[in-house]
Amino acid sequence: MKRKIYLKMKSLVEARELWLNRFGDRDLLGEEDISVLEALGRITSHPVFAGISSPPFHAAAMDGVAVHAESTYGAQERTPKKLKLNRDAFWINTGRPIPEGTNSVIMVEKLRELEDEFIEIYASGYPWENVRKVGEDVVATELLFPRNHRIRPYDLGALLAADVDRIFVRKRPRVTIIPTGNELLGPVGTRTERVGVEGRIPESNSVILSAMVTESGGIPRIEGIVRDVYEDLMEAVRTAVESDAHMVIINAGSSAGSEDYTYHVLEALGEVLVHGVAMMPGKPTILAEVSGKPVIGNPGFSVSATLSFDQFGGPLLCALQGIPEKTRKRVRVYLSRAVPSKLGVEEFLRVNLGRVNDRIVATPLPRGAGSITTLTRAEGIVRLSELSEGLPRNAEADAELLVEDAVLDRTLVMIGSHDMSIDVLSDLMGRDPRGFRLSSANVGSLGGLLALRSGCAHAAGSHLLEEATGEYNRFYVKKYLPDKKVSLFHLVRREQGLILRRGNPKGIRGLEDLVREDITFMNRQAGSGTRILLDFRLKQQGIDPTAIRGYDREEYTHMAVAVDIKSGVSDVGLGIFAAARALDLDFIPVVQEQYDLVIPSAFLDDERVRMLLDTAATEPFRERMTSLGGYDPGMSGEFWTEIGP
Amino acid sequence: MKRKIYLKMKSLVEARELWLNRFGDRDLLGEEDISVLEALGRITSHPVFAGISSPPFHAAAMDGVAVHAESTYGAQERTPKKLKLNRDAFWINTGRPIPEGTNSVIMVEKLRELEDEFIEIYASGYPWENVRKVGEDVVATELLFPRNHRIRPYDLGALLAADVDRIFVRKRPRVTIIPTGNELLGPVGTRTERVGVEGRIPESNSVILSAMVTESGGIPRIEGIVRDVYEDLMEAVRTAVESDAHMVIINAGSSAGSEDYTYHVLEALGEVLVHGVAMMPGKPTILAEVSGKPVIGNPGFSVSATLSFDQFGGPLLCALQGIPEKTRKRVRVYLSRAVPSKLGVEEFLRVNLGRVNDRIVATPLPRGAGSITTLTRAEGIVRLSELSEGLPRNAEADAELLVEDAVLDRTLVMIGSHDMSIDVLSDLMGRDPRGFRLSSANVGSLGGLLALRSGCAHAAGSHLLEEATGEYNRFYVKKYLPDKKVSLFHLVRREQGLILRRGNPKGIRGLEDLVREDITFMNRQAGSGTRILLDFRLKQQGIDPTAIRGYDREEYTHMAVAVDIKSGVSDVGLGIFAAARALDLDFIPVVQEQYDLVIPSAFLDDERVRMLLDTAATEPFRERMTSLGGYDPGMSGEFWTEIGP
Repeated sequence: MKRKIYLKMKSLVEARELWLNRFGDRDLLGEEDISVLEALGRITSHPVFAGISSPPFHAAAMDGVAVHAESTYGAQERTPKKLKLNRDAFWINTGRPIPEGTNSVIMVEKLRELEDEFIEIYASGYPWENVRKVGEDVVATELLFPRNHRIRPYDLGALLAADVDRIFVRKRPRVTIIPTGNELLGPVGTRTERVGVEGRIPESNSVILSAMVTESGGIPRIEGIVRDVYEDLMEAVRTAVESDAHMVIINAGSSAGSEDYTYHVLEALGEVLVHGVAMMPGKPTILAEVSGKPVIGNPGFSVSATLSFDQFGGPLLCALQGIPEKTRKRVRVYLSRAVPSKLGVEEFLRVNLGRVNDRIVATPLPRGAGSITTLTRAEGIVRLSELSEGLPRNAEADAELLVEDAVLDRTLVMIGSHDMSIDVLSDLMGRDPRGFRLSSANVGSLGGLLALRSGCAHAAGSHLLEEATGEYNRFYVKKYLPDKKVSLFHLVRREQGLILRRGNPKGIRGLEDLVREDITFMNRQAGSGTRILLDFRLKQQGIDPTAIRGYDREEYTHMAVAVDIKSGVSDVGLGIFAAARALDLDFIPVVQEQYDLVIPSAFLDDERVRMLLDTAATEPFRERMTSLGGYDPGMSGEFWTEIGP
Repeated sequence: MKRKIYLKMKSLVEARELWLNRFGDRDLLGEEDISVLEALGRITSHPVFAGISSPPFHAAAMDGVAVHAESTYGAQERTPKKLKLNRDAFWINTGRPIPEGTNSVIMVEKLRELEDEFIEIYASGYPWENVRKVGEDVVATELLFPRNHRIRPYDLGALLAADVDRIFVRKRPRVTIIPTGNELLGPVGTRTERVGVEGRIPESNSVILSAMVTESGGIPRIEGIVRDVYEDLMEAVRTAVESDAHMVIINAGSSAGSEDYTYHVLEALGEVLVHGVAMMPGKPTILAEVSGKPVIGNPGFSVSATLSFDQFGGPLLCALQGIPEKTRKRVRVYLSRAVPSKLGVEEFLRVNLGRVNDRIVATPLPRGAGSITTLTRAEGIVRLSELSEGLPRNAEADAELLVEDAVLDRTLVMIGSHDMSIDVLSDLMGRDPRGFRLSSANVGSLGGLLALRSGCAHAAGSHLLEEATGEYNRFYVKKYLPDKKVSLFHLVRREQGLILRRGNPKGIRGLEDLVREDITFMNRQAGSGTRILLDFRLKQQGIDPTAIRGYDREEYTHMAVAVDIKSGVSDVGLGIFAAARALDLDFIPVVQEQYDLVIPSAFLDDERVRMLLDTAATEPFRERMTSLGGYDPGMSGEFWTEIGP
């Protein structure tokens, strides 16, 4: 099998137009008639007309007595009219038919019962007052709903009231999903091999796609995993297009790898319309027609698979059902960081969002298509057009929301140094029924102070040591936030130390060994508290940083450093005990440092900030931190000092 | 049983607070562990941590060859590096583990295959380039999702990638719905009586509520209809609260009618917290606690039942599941008509919405709680606070959207005279896959011209006769829209005439009989084309309007007039043939008149307006109109004239 190099890539706009024009108008689905009792969410395929009028008779619109209006003329508070029950006036409840000969209902509040079956009326009625006339709501034969209408709960009420029993709706589109790949493991229970062994990974895209099909109104069907054998894939696709499926998705095998047969199979069986779309993630998307049916070769990375379905699979399902494409709500956001972008490709940048002061701040997440957490942790997506080379910091942009927009008002935005305590606070705050969220971006302590300065965050975690005094944060807050009143609160004291492979195979004893020729170090980024701490210690001990192999290689979190050690990328790094422990690594303590919350005083009345501080002061927070090891949360949530002009 | 007069009504805010504080915090639901494959849309009841790291090994991030980076140093376009396959370089596909000893992947685009298992590389790699390191996406033990998180499609991908097989989620709340009322008929198939006979109506609220429970994440259960017998209702409620239901809704019997036992039953079995809420519709809502469970006595009118559930049932289901209350999107709208409102009651005004020019125009629908179509035909709800006495025309207000907001951009707004042709156009336009809608408000021809003048509509249907010339519309458009360029298009010519009961029992022969003492007339509202036509004809024939009984009683549509005749409210009215035919009434033709589309010329390029005119000119439109009877659509969609400065 020859390796497939992409056909000329199509722009996203071109590819969508080609795809939706080819299939969107075709009446592939057909219709079925169903009971109204099962019609919630279904789409009408014919106009629906009323079977009977509603109300089907003149009905009382109030509780009271039905009368002939003329018999009440002249009734007033001081000169009530006296009427005989069951002759001139009839007790009646809301919704009941008014008796023959009556044409008005007097409210129960405007009359009084007397003895001997008489009542007194204090206000006169007029003809048809408080009466719902036949057909006032719905007239028999009237149009209730046009075609292509999605049935909502109260629509069911209108249908039943008009005595409509069954309606014609579009069939739900059936989508067959074919997972392919030698490396894939099926669901737990069906597996004969273990994750990680010989590159095996759990199959997940078919489950994501299946859920997306469901949310688009379709009925998904996941086939068994097809291995990377040309004939097997050929057979699976042929079977799928010959079944009752309205659309087929092959996942993946759509890129240019040597075992990616999808393109060749689709070319052999039908017509490939698009191979490669100028979007990122999502580039290796194939769009084809086989036996008159739409077939998608979806990219393999989960983020790509999701965003590609969003652009092609979902919209086509909507078009087939005759409903408008689902669009996400958009909000105007401010970027807390600059983002470069590649000309000629439409990029879908995943961002954290939260409302700070009166604007919504967007902080970009990592961009790799392989990281599904860049989608699960995102609150929104900023699309960078194919004509854009990127956006500067504080630029405005539109973001599509992945969460309810009300969530942004309940989101506390933290940008700064990362610590495990932030995750624990996030979990504890999330328990509140008001639905608080904590969104955190890890840019290091200094980055956090700069984010506070430009109004992009409510709070920052910081552990910046001033060499001269040995004190944390105060000096840096004064220096970088000179114009703001800022409050510092204790969060935790924590152990920083050397993270080493289990059993310390290279026999590292302390910082002095970092210069050894057989040892590779992994550093943290400039501006991070840990980097400053390292540099301070090296200077104290008279160690030359340039003599350390790997001093110029940087990671952005403790956990990333620990992962590097665990996986042999490096031998040693400086980080917190909890990260070493989480990955079962060895740890040599170097120093106990102070990690504080830095909060502009103007935000101290914000309920999200209050919630943060209250939570930090609770016993459950302290217990959780203590159990992680390497933490002292003794003063957590306590006010330390206020700094500012 | 004594008639129950309302307890002191609570404001909506008070009632909600009381209700949600009483039950919202209680952990009524409990949790269950389920397979991730079934977790879409479920709410986590515990934080979820990663089982393994993802990727579980160092994986290629690109298709290409895996190499040790050092072996490529110096490679350039002009001085490529030659490497031996399967010794220095290894073909690798995206996602596969890189072989032992390699630490970089060279993209397939940057190399060339030579003979004898050699390749040439045109760019040097650096360590870990194009490699996804172990745990780059997810690190084992890391927090994936906090509690109270609703699982989205791509969340499933993160769970599976981290080898999480089962998760703890909150149980779905079970809601038992008890329909009550002697007048109610169960679903078709179970009925022994006919709709309309002895006041029987189809039961519909339990179906609406059941659908709303489903949409709020709950599991509904509809009990059999309970008749208006105190002991029966008592027994049904007792059984429901003793079952596994988390909430019980009784519908209806919550008002003050003599057979409304709900209040008494709830008082006897438990504690009534609220009886009567200052909202409209929805006032007769009861909120109670029985055996520790929340019980709602829901109002009987469908609109009230829906809006009451929206305020109490739905929010409590969300609170129990630990998720934020669903809120509808809000938009700023302009009212095309003034609306009065009652002080002390929060009113939920149903409105038609559409974007005209750059603002969204809201036209109020009728306000009766008995009319479910005031909800099904609405695009939004404007809430008038309990402190408001109403809003003037052109006032700004917030509307909660009942449709996707993109729908408003695809909605053509017609305000003016009503004709059956508008419904046919609406249906035909709705077939377009782009999802066009036609929203129409019936305010008469003159009202339509005034709506165009104030920029509240794209088009108006009009049939205003000028007495002097016998010509339609042109004179009125000049008079009422002197500053606007306006185009007139033919839509239909139609028969207007006298609508009479079947068989013409009063022997009416023509307009001259309207003054007879034994005859009651039903008029159309002032400003309607039909009213102007009537007055013109009466004058021609020398008939004194004041001599006509019922001349001062007005309806707003042809159909409403026909309903009045059908139901005996009046003997005769002036209206179109199609209305008479729809209700199987007799008809005496009086005149064929001209019904035009009036469209400001500035809108002629709007795609909705183009769609309207294109549709009017189609054969299917003409066929449908002809088949209704009384219509001549021969020139439909044709341009007639442009008027303006």
